[in-house]
Order: sequence, then structure tokens, then C-alpha cells
Amino acid sequence: MTPEDRDISVLIEPAELAGVGAGDAQESNTLDEDNRLKPAFVRKVREALEAGERDVVYDLVEPLHPADIADLFELVDADERGALARAISDQMSPEVFAELNDHVRELIVEDLPADQVADIAEQLETDDAVAMIEDLDEEDREAVLAEMEPEDRAAIESALAYPEESAGRLMSRDFIAAPEHMRVGDLIDYLRERPNLATEFWEVFIVDARHHPVGTCSLSWILRSPRTVALSDVMKRDQTLIDVGMDQEEVALRFQKYALISAAVVDVSGRLVGQITVDDVVHIIQEEAGEDALLLSGAGDGDINEPIRDSYFARVRWLIANLVTALLSATIISSFGGAIEKLVALAALSPMVASIGGNAGTQTMAVTVRALATNQLTRTNTRRILWREMRVAMLNGATVATLIGCATWAFFGNPLLGGVIATAVILNILTAGIAGLVVPVLLDRFDQDPAVASSVFVTMITDSMGFFAFLGLAVASGLVG
Amino acid sequence: MTPEDRDISVLIEPAELAGVGAGDAQESNTLDEDNRLKPAFVRKVREALEAGERDVVYDLVEPLHPADIADLFELVDADERGALARAISDQMSPEVFAELNDHVRELIVEDLPADQVADIAEQLETDDAVAMIEDLDEEDREAVLAEMEPEDRAAIESALAYPEESAGRLMSRDFIAAPEHMRVGDLIDYLRERPNLATEFWEVFIVDARHHPVGTCSLSWILRSPRTVALSDVMKRDQTLIDVGMDQEEVALRFQKYALISAAVVDVSGRLVGQITVDDVVHIIQEEAGEDALLLSGAGDGDINEPIRDSYFARVRWLIANLVTALLSATIISSFGGAIEKLVALAALSPMVASIGGNAGTQTMAVTVRALATNQLTRTNTRRILWREMRVAMLNGATVATLIGCATWAFFGNPLLGGVIATAVILNILTAGIAGLVVPVLLDRFDQDPAVASSVFVTMITDSMGFFAFLGLAVASGLVG
Repeated sequence: MTPEDRDISVLIEPAELAGVGAGDAQESNTLDEDNRLKPAFVRKVREALEAGERDVVYDLVEPLHPADIADLFELVDADERGALARAISDQMSPEVFAELNDHVRELIVEDLPADQVADIAEQLETDDAVAMIEDLDEEDREAVLAEMEPEDRAAIESALAYPEESAGRLMSRDFIAAPEHMRVGDLIDYLRERPNLATEFWEVFIVDARHHPVGTCSLSWILRSPRTVALSDVMKRDQTLIDVGMDQEEVALRFQKYALISAAVVDVSGRLVGQITVDDVVHIIQEEAGEDALLLSGAGDGDINEPIRDSYFARVRWLIANLVTALLSATIISSFGGAIEKLVALAALSPMVASIGGNAGTQTMAVTVRALATNQLTRTNTRRILWREMRVAMLNGATVATLIGCATWAFFGNPLLGGVIATAVILNILTAGIAGLVVPVLLDRFDQDPAVASSVFVTMITDSMGFFAFLGLAVASGLVG
Repeated sequence: MTPEDRDISVLIEPAELAGVGAGDAQESNTLDEDNRLKPAFVRKVREALEAGERDVVYDLVEPLHPADIADLFELVDADERGALARAISDQMSPEVFAELNDHVRELIVEDLPADQVADIAEQLETDDAVAMIEDLDEEDREAVLAEMEPEDRAAIESALAYPEESAGRLMSRDFIAAPEHMRVGDLIDYLRERPNLATEFWEVFIVDARHHPVGTCSLSWILRSPRTVALSDVMKRDQTLIDVGMDQEEVALRFQKYALISAAVVDVSGRLVGQITVDDVVHIIQEEAGEDALLLSGAGDGDINEPIRDSYFARVRWLIANLVTALLSATIISSFGGAIEKLVALAALSPMVASIGGNAGTQTMAVTVRALATNQLTRTNTRRILWREMRVAMLNGATVATLIGCATWAFFGNPLLGGVIATAVILNILTAGIAGLVVPVLLDRFDQDPAVASSVFVTMITDSMGFFAFLGLAVASGLVG
């Protein structure tokens, strides 16, 4: 709700807004217009924490939604998180743990005794429990598992047996499966009689005698069909099944492509073993799409809650890689030392040529990486897209080269220098267009994540080409010497 | 399904796989292991198109899912799309149009007569129909609307009255609302008796006499409750309402934060006017998260199907902006022309200092932009995160400065030159850490999208600082002159 809309509605019917928003009365005190916790509210909590007033903290936090409590943990300082958790211990519901940022949760969980972690994990859905436990070290994890009920423990151990980021880790083992001959009325009666079934489900999976899924029934179809109809007559036969070993990024792409709400997960023999619901996939879609910006920049996972040590190691690697590739440029410049001594303008202008090429290369690279990630760029259309990028590069090159060429001519009064820099810029933008497409596509062909290493190669290519083309042309054209 | 898994399952029970996947039998011919159309399949379609064999094209496309037909349009050349659409005209279902890439759809829709577009739009959900029509020019749009049934026309016109990318455009006007006193059994009977109700719904919204939502009932709760229970006793009162004017990015954040499947949309007076379902939000989450990588690189929307003209204008603006900021660096270098003439190594080394700073700045900037986009970074924790980034920068700076300092000393045999470059690198990486955080945060405070313009400013700052610190220190330290 934007502030403007709020004002308008207050003008029209002031009494009517009371029920709007997830508790609007409280929103005005604790949440800003973008649904984030207000700085003033967080300050109050921190002051109460510092003063040791646990009751005050408790009362402040009480009206919050679990997702906002999780946000609160991110917003207070790392050394205040333990005190906050203790002050609101019985509000630390499984929902709060499910919503916590991975890094923050790890810190809190490490501080809790194993039996308490086990209690929380038992109340979570399997996928959230696994997320909570998987990052603990071997010993702590064993201690937590030992405290759990055998059934919950078995579910988590079976999830942990699947590779990280696979459908097997992500799926919930709570789902509703019904035999094909069952009638709508019988299913409804069955569900009414068993209060302990899966808590959240949106579709019922119809299975044959071997427990293989043969169709899916959305709950709205069941609700709207007469009691006597067989489930096999209302189910959709054409369904998307998820293999238990499928990578979570692939799972997310299927959910997007086929607009799924939930999907059945099958093991290698085709038996139904779990379900994945869209709310678990939404986080993955967001993470996978957002991580490209981070990976392209060489910032690794790039979460602001990541321990500094991890951020340091993730980033310094790429800075050192950049150092090594920059050496190539330095070597090229050095080899033209004689020319630079004669015409020092070359030293001032050459970084511009390199920088514009780097910029153009980054543009094409970002487009390519996104198109690869969303399955838009495949072997089928690579050549056509390369030709497309070349045409964009020619237009960009012509425009920028004209500008820089004329400006250089005007400023230094040297038309040859203007011509040399314009030609170098065109060459470098074309090189950038090719490198920006070919480097990520090649990395993808060799099953490497194109977002991770493309930048280093593309920048190396455009930098070297920029310096080499400009300085080389300056010498070849007889501008110097 | 990975190829390995497929082999394993074939080994165990070859007959059992027939039903796995959205038609696995066909998958082997048309889809690769990543669920993309195979190049060989696309080639067959294109050859048949070129040979004018429309029957062959029709039969090839027939077994495809609408989402794959949409992909096929993206994969063939732009000038083949019209022929493909004509060859498979009765397979061009509304679902295919809903799945088409915006740019590709625009081209196809522009070619179709208004009455045919109107027919398709009538069968689509309001949000998909709006997406199809909103990009047409005024005249074509009017022609299409004139061909539509009054009711559908009214729905689309009312959606078009809301701003682009708002909840009002996104919402569906088909939803189920029930009064609070209604009993579970009555609702089920009501739904069974009316076959023409909303096609897709996952929750029922409970409204009071003024049509204001007072709670939400997930269908699974309705299915599992006795017929005599009142809806008000099974509904969840704490619900997230979406204001009709809310920006779609904000809508997507709410869906993520509160793990929603659907949400009620209310107008300014608090009346229920529509619903948004998660499958419509998934595309937005993916787009909004993915666009950061594109915007940071200055590639605009960056879709590979975007017309070349649009790509050119989107990108050349940033290249020209880059040109202007690079002038600042060139001016700084020029002003140290005397020093460079005396020690030409300065010309070779100074781009390295600038480049490493640029790289470090981009890392911090990418992390900051993501944290702002996901509401992780707010006024509450900005200062703490700045301090965090400074510490990471100090660690990175110390490491990289040591390497480059020692390497320079060793290579040029000049310890002072090594010291100068090491100091300049530390200064520039610290500057990069501050600029990478402060620039996007400031842009966000002034309600600008931090992903759009941050790069230009951050690069300008790190480039200028790199050249200035290195060349300035070289002079100040008495290394030259």
C-alpha cells in the first residue's frame, strides 16, 4: 500500500481500513510502507535488550509475524542475537526458524542445546528441518538427530542422503496420494476422518497399485465434483514429475515453465516419494535469478549476513584473478613504452578505449548469462544471437567511436589521433560483443556456471584488445615515431 | 532427470518409465535433459517450414506442451514465426500466447486480425489478456477491444486503468468469495452447482457484508472440515491483503515473505476486487531478481528477443555515460603527463590500480543492490553493513596490495615504486568498499532504482581514485621529479 493510497482511503472511509493489511494497526507502528521493520521499532528493541528488560522486548516482539521476527534477527547486531532469542524464547517458533537467513540461523542454532534444536526440527516440514540441520558440523548434527523421534529422524536422514540442492532435499514427505478408483466423496470422508495428515497440500496425487503417479487432482476440482465421481475422471493425466535427484535450479525452471503449484517427486523406479510445493520453490527462483548479479561481480554468495571471513575468501580470489589478467594489459602497455614517451596523450587515452570495451562486454555478457539461465539461449539459436549482438555492437561502436574520435580531434587538434582512437574503439566494442557472448556460452557448454568466471575472461579480452588496438594503431599509422 | 538417473531406472524397470515426466516418450525426441527443445527437432520444424510442408510442421508440433510451443517460436528465426503461426493455427491456444516471450508475442499479435486477437484474449485470464494487449498501439488496442464481449472488455479496460506493473494489472477478477456465516457444506454445494466459476483457485476469501475480506480459507481446510462448520471457524484471520495500486515488485516480496499461494486484492475502500495467485508472481520474482544483473551492466531489459533498435538505445546511453566519466580519468592522467614521461612504468601500472578498485567496487555494489532489493538492507543496519564492508575491504586491500607491491618491487627493482602502488591499491579498495555501498544506498533513499545507475558512479569513483592515488603518490613520494 503506497502512502498516497492510504491517505485517499482514510479520506473516504476512515473506519474501513482497520482490517486491511496483515494487521494494519500494528503496521503503522512497526512496519514502514515497504513492509520493512521501522528503524525506530528496532531501536526500541535494542535499547530494551541493552537495558536487560526482557519483558519489554517480549511485548514489543509479540504482535510480529514470524517472518518479521526473522527479519528482526537480521537487523540487530550479531552479538545481540543470543539475548534476543533468550528474551523471546517461546516466540521462537519453527516458522521463525524457517524464515531466518541461513547465516543468522546457523549462529543461533549453534548456540542452542541439541534437544531444543531437535524439538524445533520435529515441528518443521522436512525441507525446513533439513535446511536447519545440514550446515551443522558432523558431531552437532548427530547429537541433534539422536534427540529426535525415530520417524522424524528417519525422514531427515533420508533427505540428507540426497545431494545438496537436489529435489530429494527439497521435497516434503507429507503429501496426499489416493488410488485411482477412489471416488470424490470417499476422499473427502477420508480426509475429514484423519486430522493428522499433511498440513499443507494443494493437489492430490493419484497413484496406481505400484504407487506410481498417474495423475494430479487440484483441490478445486475435487471440491466442485459430485461425490460419486471417480478421481481418475477428474484428474489431469498430463503432469510434470520431478525426479528425486533433479537439481533445485532445474526444479525451479519446471515450476516456472509449467506454472505449477505443487509437483510429485518420484524415485528412480518411478514411485511417488514426496511433493514439492511452489512456496519452497519461490525462494530458489529468487536466489538463483539474483545470484547472477553477485556471481558476475565476483562477490560469491554475497549475502550481507555472511561471515566476513567467507566474504573475504570469496572476493579476494577474483581480485587476485583480476590482478593476473591486468598484468597482461600492463605488459602490452609497457611494450609500447617508447610510443608513450613520445606522445604522452596515449597514456591518458588508452584506458578509455579499454574501459568502453569492458563496459560493452559486460552488457553482452549479462544478457547472455540471463538467457542461458532461463533456457532462452540454446544450441539452436546461438549463431543467430551472435549475429544479433554483432549488429548491436556495430551500432554502438559507430556511435561511440564518432563521439570519441571527434572529441579527440577537437581537443588535441590531431585528426590522425582521432581516427586512431575511433578505429580502436570500434574494434574493441566488436571484440566485446563476441567475447561477451562466446565466453559464457563456452563455459556453459563445458558445464561450468557461466556467471562465475565469465567476467574475468571478458575483461581480460577487452582490456588487452583496448590497449593493443589503440597503441598498436598509433604506431602502425605513423602517429608516433 | 539427469541422464545417469534415467539409465539407472531403465536398467531396473524398463517398462515403468513410460508415464514419467510430461510425456517422457516424446521427451526423448524433442526435449533434451534440461527440458529444452532439441536443436535437431527445431531444425526439422524449420526445414518443413522452408519446404512449405505445413502438415509436417503441424504433426511435429502437435505433441508439444503449450510452454514448449512458445519456446519454439523464440528459437526459430523472426521471419519464420508468421509461417509457423499459420501452419499450426488451431494449436495457437491461449496458453501458448500466455507463455510467449513479450517481444515475440508482440510481433505475432501485430500480424493477426483484431477479431482473432479478441478471441484469444477472451479465453485468457485477465492478467494474461492485459499483457497481450497492453503493448499494442492505441489504435490496434481499440480495434481489439471493440471485437470483445462487453464483459471481458470491461475487465480488461478496468485493468488497463491501473498503472503498469501494479497489482491492479496483475490480479485476476475471477475468484471465490464467501460470506462468513456460510457453512462448509453449503460452500461445497454452491461450488458443485456452478460450473462456470473461476477456473483456478487455491483459497476462498471470506468477506463481510460490505465485501471486505475478513479471512482466508485454504481449500485443504475446507475439504477436511465437517459440512456443518461455519467458514468463519476454519478461516485464517491473519491475512496479507494486497492494495490494488501496489507495485508488482512489492507484491512479489509479500508473496515470498509470507509464503503465499494466493492473496486478496482490495481497492482503496477495502473492498475485495481480485486475487493474485503465486503462478503469476513467480515470473515477476524471476524477472525482478534477474534484472539486477542486466541493469548493473547497463544492458537495460536485456532480453535476447528485444528488437535491435531497443537494445542499441538501452546500451549506447550507458556507453556514452561511461565515456564521459572516463574523461575524468583521462584528465587526471594528463595532468600527470610530466611524471609519466619521466617514468613510463607509471602508464603501464596505473590502469591496474584502477581496474582492481573497479572490481572491488563492483563486488560490494552487487551485494548492496541485492540486499536492498530483498529488503535486507534498511536504515536500521546500513551503518553496521558499511563497517562490515570496510573490514572486508581492509582484508582484501592488504592481501592484494602485498601481492602487487612485492611483484612491482621484484620486477622493477624499485621498492619505492612497490610501496607507492601498494598504498594506492589499499586506498582504492577502501574507496571502492565505501562507494559500492554508499552509492546504491543513496540512490535508493532518493527513490531511484539502485541497480540502474550505480555502476557509472562507482566506476567513475574507483577509476579516478585509482589514477589519482597512484600518480599522486608517485609524485608526492619523490619517485619521479
